[in-house]
Order: sequence, then structure tokens, then C-alpha cells
Amino acid sequence: MGADLERVEARIEVAATIDLPFVSALVADLVQAGGKRLRPLLLLLAGRAYMYDLDRLVTAAAGVELLHTASLIHDDNIDRSALRRGRPTLNSKIDSSAVILIGDYLFAQSAMLAAATENTRVVAIFASTLSDICDGQLREMFDAHQLDQGRAQYERRIYGKTASLFAAAAEMGAVIGQAPPAHVRSLRAFATDVGMAFQIIDDVLDLREGSDTLGKPAGQDLRQGTVTLPSMLFAETLPQGDPRRACLDRVISGDEDSEKVIDELIAAVRSSGVLDTATNVAADFVVRAKNHLNVISDAGSRELLEQFADAALSRTS
Amino acid sequence: MGADLERVEARIEVAATIDLPFVSALVADLVQAGGKRLRPLLLLLAGRAYMYDLDRLVTAAAGVELLHTASLIHDDNIDRSALRRGRPTLNSKIDSSAVILIGDYLFAQSAMLAAATENTRVVAIFASTLSDICDGQLREMFDAHQLDQGRAQYERRIYGKTASLFAAAAEMGAVIGQAPPAHVRSLRAFATDVGMAFQIIDDVLDLREGSDTLGKPAGQDLRQGTVTLPSMLFAETLPQGDPRRACLDRVISGDEDSEKVIDELIAAVRSSGVLDTATNVAADFVVRAKNHLNVISDAGSRELLEQFADAALSRTS
Repeated sequence: MGADLERVEARIEVAATIDLPFVSALVADLVQAGGKRLRPLLLLLAGRAYMYDLDRLVTAAAGVELLHTASLIHDDNIDRSALRRGRPTLNSKIDSSAVILIGDYLFAQSAMLAAATENTRVVAIFASTLSDICDGQLREMFDAHQLDQGRAQYERRIYGKTASLFAAAAEMGAVIGQAPPAHVRSLRAFATDVGMAFQIIDDVLDLREGSDTLGKPAGQDLRQGTVTLPSMLFAETLPQGDPRRACLDRVISGDEDSEKVIDELIAAVRSSGVLDTATNVAADFVVRAKNHLNVISDAGSRELLEQFADAALSRTS
Repeated sequence: MGADLERVEARIEVAATIDLPFVSALVADLVQAGGKRLRPLLLLLAGRAYMYDLDRLVTAAAGVELLHTASLIHDDNIDRSALRRGRPTLNSKIDSSAVILIGDYLFAQSAMLAAATENTRVVAIFASTLSDICDGQLREMFDAHQLDQGRAQYERRIYGKTASLFAAAAEMGAVIGQAPPAHVRSLRAFATDVGMAFQIIDDVLDLREGSDTLGKPAGQDLRQGTVTLPSMLFAETLPQGDPRRACLDRVISGDEDSEKVIDELIAAVRSSGVLDTATNVAADFVVRAKNHLNVISDAGSRELLEQFADAALSRTS
């Protein structure tokens, strides 16, 4: 898929060109900072199992990646994150109003790429996914600082925030490939489960790894008051009255200022075993994901998709 | 068109529904605050001259209006405007991160409406217009605080910021109506010129009217360092060395803090006659706009479009 991903890269580069001197360098830098292009890869893999309409697949894949980039830009602005992928985020470099507009501009470019597929279903998937992502991000914001919340609430949030775009990528690939409707549904279900696993691992890594690996400080979610699967599981392990529960509550509520206390809490989460438990939940999602691949007759494509699912689980950054 | 506009209104209301208690009331309030629904009206009028596919026209019209609303939300966030249409803006009520996401959410809903027309050209127009709007807003930001700029720079900016969505509305209406290509181009050209006139009048009103009429304080553009046609014309009337030029320069540069000095400058602009000159420039755009209507054979539709153009010019708020 290397050569095809390079075509996606080239398409992204062209789409993200903007004729404004100061902004253009920023946007190019941001878009090229890259990430792993997982969503384009997933889209191409889903298409590969059917009619491989390369030009449309590349166009849609570039659109999906730019949609992802745009939503990261707005999300960084919300989180006020100073580092993303080990580089300073856009919002730490320029005024936040420009950041909003640059995000909007990239949304526009991604919409143009979706439109350029000239496939109304691809466009409909694109639009509803943008809506799902916003829904997930709004829920993350309004669910924040409340330790007491159920697993369903968490799953709905990470579906919107992350899994919806994985689902969209696979569905677009299958739709462009003119896969039969049942296959489109299966690929979407596969990618949804992979996306859920991906986000759970993200939430685990946020607590397990330090700046060196992730390019951002550890425990960001806790510091921002975002409840994730590991912190939910940790709370469940603690008996009523355990002082660590009160501490977790204070940190999630945003009432704990001491870095030392937060670091100790992170250490307690790490040694509690909940990171392994959460990883097992992610692994279950990957098992379910793979079951959806039975419909695919092309063994080569199926194997690549299985590898994709495994990689979401075993990643360390 | 009243009944059809009510259908647009109903479609907007449904599309802007969000299943999040706190946000939902804010969004409903914002979307219903309304404005004049000029862009939906223009879209319906353009469609009226051809095949009146009401359901698709209503869907596209609702999409255009929500795109407009979303871009206002991000723009208010950028301007930090406290009042819009006489009501407190969203960003004066809640945290700016939520504002960004609510804007994104409405972008998503507008994209879904565009997709729901199942017309790939409508979707393509939608996406490229979003790009044009961002381009205009980014230029407004990066051109700010510089008094020395040419008319072309101003026109490019207001094309992106305002005229592009007028153009898109008319083009979508004509495309959905299956108008011949030459008619689509003419209607787009008509609406572009009307949109230019509309924005110039906006810039005149910003200086001419006070809070009572506009629902926001007078001279906002000057205070934000945005150079508009009236301020460009005012600068041109002043001989080199005139102290009012230095004052204008200071205000545009953001180096003047005295409200009294700014108010005096606004009074000087008002009495200089440049507001009339700018209004004449807008009137010229409307004349050019109407010339594009010659292709339309249906006299009733042509007349309604002419009235629309006149209204853009004669409005006082």
C-alpha cells in the first residue's frame, strides 16, 4: 500500500495549500507533521477487498485525513495542549482565533475532497461523521470533571471522538469499491470496534507513557478532568473510604493543584493493574472486530485488515 | 415565498436539534434568533425561475443558512463580539471551547443537509464556499491593522466573507432547478454582485448606525482594526499631514485607547460624505447584478430577484 499512501500524501499536500504567506507555512507544517495516516490506510484496505478505484479512494482517503487533522486542531485549541505528536501545537504558536479559522479551512478542504469523489454516499458519510465527531467532543467537554459516570457514557463519547472516523474510513472504502451492502456494514462494524480499541489504548498510553514516547506529558486526561476507562476501572477497585478515591475525585474535579499529588495518583493507577484490565477490554474489541471480517472472501485483504486491528492494540505511541 | 421559507425554518429547527441538555437550548436560541433568512430566500428565488423541486430547494436552503450561522458563531468568537442581532452572542454566554464545537456541529449539520440533496454539484458548491468563507475570514484577520491596502484586497476579502455564500445560494437554486449552464453562471454572477453590495452596506451601517439599530455598538470595524471601504475612502479624502489621518492610522493599528477620540473619528467619517460615496459603489454593484438577470425569461422571478437586490442596498440594519 506504500505507493498508494504516497499518492494520498501528495493529495493532502495539494489540498492543504493556502495562498496566504504566514498561514501557508503553518498549515503545511501541521499537515505534514503527519501522524501515521491510519485512517487513509484503513480506507484503502477496505477498498482493496473490492473494486480498487484508486483515484476515488485516494481522494476520499485524503479527505478523511484532513478531517482528522482539522478536528485535532480544534481539539488542541480546546484542550490548550502545548504539544501534539511531539511538536508544539498550532495554538501554542499563534492566536487562537486564527487556529479556529485554519481548522475551518481544513474542514472545507476535506469536504471538497469528499465532494470530489462525486459519490453522494461518501459525502453523506463524511457529513454525518463530522457530526458524530462534534457530538463526541461536546460530550467529552460536558461530561468532564464528573467521576461518577457509566461505561456506556464513556463508550458513546469515544465512539464519536475516535471510532466514528475509523468507521467512516472503512465504509467509504467499501462504498467506493462497490462492495455489497452487507459487506459495507461488516467493514463499518469492523472499523468501529477497531476504533474503540484504538481509543482505549490511547487512554491507557496517556497514563502509562511519559513525554518521551507520546510527545506530551503523562496523565493529560486526568489533569483535564476527562474520565477514561482506566480511571473508571481504578475508581471501581477502590473500597469506599479509600483516600485514593477522594484524591482521584479531587483531580478529576480540577480541585487538585499539586503536581506531586497528581504524579502519585498516576503511579497508583499504574501499579493497580487497571491498565492491563483496560488493555484486555481493547483486546476484546479487536476480537469482535475480526469476527466481522468473515464476509470478506479475499484472504489477502482480510489478513491486512487483521494486521491493522492488531496494530491498533499493540501500539506504544 | 412565505410558506416555503417556513418550510426552510422547520428544516433548520430539526437539523439544529442536539441531544445534549445544556447545549441544545443554546443552539436552538441561536439558530432561531434568526436574522432575515436572506440566503435561503435567494436560493428559493433562483430555483423558482426553473424547475421548482421544492423539497431539495428547502433542504439546500436550510443548509446554506446553517452554514451562515456556523460561520457567524466562529466569527463572533474571533471578534469577541458581545452582541449580535441585539442578543448576547454565544461566546459571551459560555466558554469559548464549547463555542468552537457548537460552530463545528452546525457546520456538520449544514454539510448533512447539502449531502441530503443527493446532488454532487450542490455538495461541491457547498464545500468550495466553506473554503471561500474561511479564506475571506483569514484575510480579514491577517489584513487587519494595516491602513494601507488596495481596493482589490478589500473586495477579495468581502467576496470570501459574504458574497461567496450569496453566490452559492443562487447557484445551488439554479442547479437544483436544472437551469441551463449559462443561466447558472448568470445567477451566480448576479448573487455575487448583490453580496458585494450587501457587505459594503454592512460596512457603511457599521459606521452610520448606533446600537439601537444594529444591535451592536457603532464603529466596530474601526475598533477591531478592520479596514473597510468607508475607512479607505476617508483616508483618500485626507491630505497628507492631516491630523485625522494619523488618528485613523492609530485607531486601525489598535494604538488608540480613548473612546472619545474614536467617537470623534467616527463623527468625522460620517460628516465627510464617504458613507454616501461607499453607498454609491454598492449601488453600482446592484446595477451590474441586475444586468445578469437578462437571461431569465420568467418576468415574475426576474422581478423578485431585482427586488432582492434593491433590498440589499436600501436596508438600514
